[in-house]
Amino acid sequence: MNKTKSQTIYFPSAPRVAATASVAGPKECAGIVGKYVDLALDDDMFGEETYEKAECKMFRYVVEKALENGNLQEKDLDLLVSGDLLNQIISASFAARDYPVPFLGVYGACSTMAESLIIAATMIQAGHADNAVAATGSHFSSAERQYRYPLELGTTRPPQAQWTVTGAGATLLCKAENTKSRVCVSSATLGKVVDYGITDVNNMGAAMAPAACDTILAHFRDTGRDPSYYDLVVTGDLGALGSRILKDLTWEKGIDLHENHVDCGEIIYKVIEDEFQGGSGAGCSAVVLNSYLMDKLKKREFSRILFAATGALLSTVSSGQGESIPCICHAVEIEVL
Amino acid sequence: MNKTKSQTIYFPSAPRVAATASVAGPKECAGIVGKYVDLALDDDMFGEETYEKAECKMFRYVVEKALENGNLQEKDLDLLVSGDLLNQIISASFAARDYPVPFLGVYGACSTMAESLIIAATMIQAGHADNAVAATGSHFSSAERQYRYPLELGTTRPPQAQWTVTGAGATLLCKAENTKSRVCVSSATLGKVVDYGITDVNNMGAAMAPAACDTILAHFRDTGRDPSYYDLVVTGDLGALGSRILKDLTWEKGIDLHENHVDCGEIIYKVIEDEFQGGSGAGCSAVVLNSYLMDKLKKREFSRILFAATGALLSTVSSGQGESIPCICHAVEIEVL
Repeated sequence: MNKTKSQTIYFPSAPRVAATASVAGPKECAGIVGKYVDLALDDDMFGEETYEKAECKMFRYVVEKALENGNLQEKDLDLLVSGDLLNQIISASFAARDYPVPFLGVYGACSTMAESLIIAATMIQAGHADNAVAATGSHFSSAERQYRYPLELGTTRPPQAQWTVTGAGATLLCKAENTKSRVCVSSATLGKVVDYGITDVNNMGAAMAPAACDTILAHFRDTGRDPSYYDLVVTGDLGALGSRILKDLTWEKGIDLHENHVDCGEIIYKVIEDEFQGGSGAGCSAVVLNSYLMDKLKKREFSRILFAATGALLSTVSSGQGESIPCICHAVEIEVL
Repeated sequence: MNKTKSQTIYFPSAPRVAATASVAGPKECAGIVGKYVDLALDDDMFGEETYEKAECKMFRYVVEKALENGNLQEKDLDLLVSGDLLNQIISASFAARDYPVPFLGVYGACSTMAESLIIAATMIQAGHADNAVAATGSHFSSAERQYRYPLELGTTRPPQAQWTVTGAGATLLCKAENTKSRVCVSSATLGKVVDYGITDVNNMGAAMAPAACDTILAHFRDTGRDPSYYDLVVTGDLGALGSRILKDLTWEKGIDLHENHVDCGEIIYKVIEDEFQGGSGAGCSAVVLNSYLMDKLKKREFSRILFAATGALLSTVSSGQGESIPCICHAVEIEVL
């Protein structure tokens, strides 16, 4: 009787990915995204005085660049949906200050790219917006000093740690009539908050993998598909260890991701000693999606991906009060029509 | 040629307010909301060990109570849209952990009640959800120690300061077929980020009034209405001073709010010396809306209100780096059919 409710929503109007934009720091651009980003920074200060201001400037850059890449002007934009990792999402809000455009601030930690895409696409589906930008990003240095330790301490990182990506990405979604693009958002599976009791704030991949598993299983259950339906099932920033855990967890439930799963955190860096498990941060999946992955979709090298961004919904206060780490994952189907 | 774009969205399916729930602290319940809330707390610790956990418990309480008041069970709920003032919106996220329901976390500071209502109503309008809860809240003690000073300091408050409300509110929205309620969300005006250069973090009313003015003017411009169309134009938490500034600003632009404007922050407390300008915090407008105002709508004492919640999008880091306070206001039309 208690039939499980569907968590998957469909977009019959197929909101189009009219354009994307991305920017990333020097460490990130040494890896796979380097030749796909719109701007590769030489200096992660981006000409600003503080890391937070540099992060905010990356947000402004990608919003502006996405509009430019989509041949739209500020006045054509109906909506900006954005959020980031900083307290009170100041990068997103302060960037939005420079655009005379309605703004919806969201917080989904590193799942923000997927969450903002879902809200923007829904606003288009409901007829509430013609052109909407979804954007997010992160900065290693602003995240590190907010969530962990003062940078000056030079704290040793444990082997399960990930490295917060310095970068930002934006996706310009438009109603179908407004663009020639054939890349669209077709469906999405909304995530529930999942908490497996992990308390190690240096082991986000292990904390987030169950959330990714929960949403990915819900997606295949709701749609009756299996992983072979997609060219790639992409997670946000589980890192190398978290990605292995996800494959084990889904395997136990009869879904085999070994063939076509990649994790943005695992692939964003050339694996060198420093990054241990790979990248993390809201900018991680935002940059990989809006550079490398979207390029492959535009060129029809991929025809369909499931983009499942994961987020750890902790704070320093919650950890200090002994709480474990609740996590979430939202999945978005992006396909070429 | 540069015709201003409409910021107002319409909900032809008229998502219904099927039920509401609210809880507030002892100081709040001494005022106007006291006899309307579902639960009046004797002790603002709510049986918990920390202020943050008490805040989170209020969130769980209002979500559960809204479902109960609407004769729904957890399994009937498609979506929870929620956020709060704490870093990484831990109250909302940790409350969501206890519900096996898709969750969208939002951050709009004290505008969160309006923002979450807009997103929840849009999900229903798009056919993505049948039943969705929008919720937010705040706690004086958790906000005070995060944004201002340790409580133990007993810092003197300047006369322009407001008092963060301890309380939470939730609105259960359902598609029209699912309820007999005639109270619905008809339209909404999405706010832009507005910054008039105010840097005094104790004068939020003055910082937020221009954002409220901007959105309220946009609403009347887009809809061709004037304030007399509404029984009340309700702002979120401008306080007494901010409310006066709003009336002056709109008056200059030809919109007269003197007849039927109230501010939740101004009316929530019995004016005694301590609160100076009245209440603030995401819980302020959430409690007033989901107790007093919704009661008047349900009883048809009001037939239509414009609920314009305001938020100040600053953080301690942004203020510390010399930034001014960007603000936002989203307005929601709630009417009885």
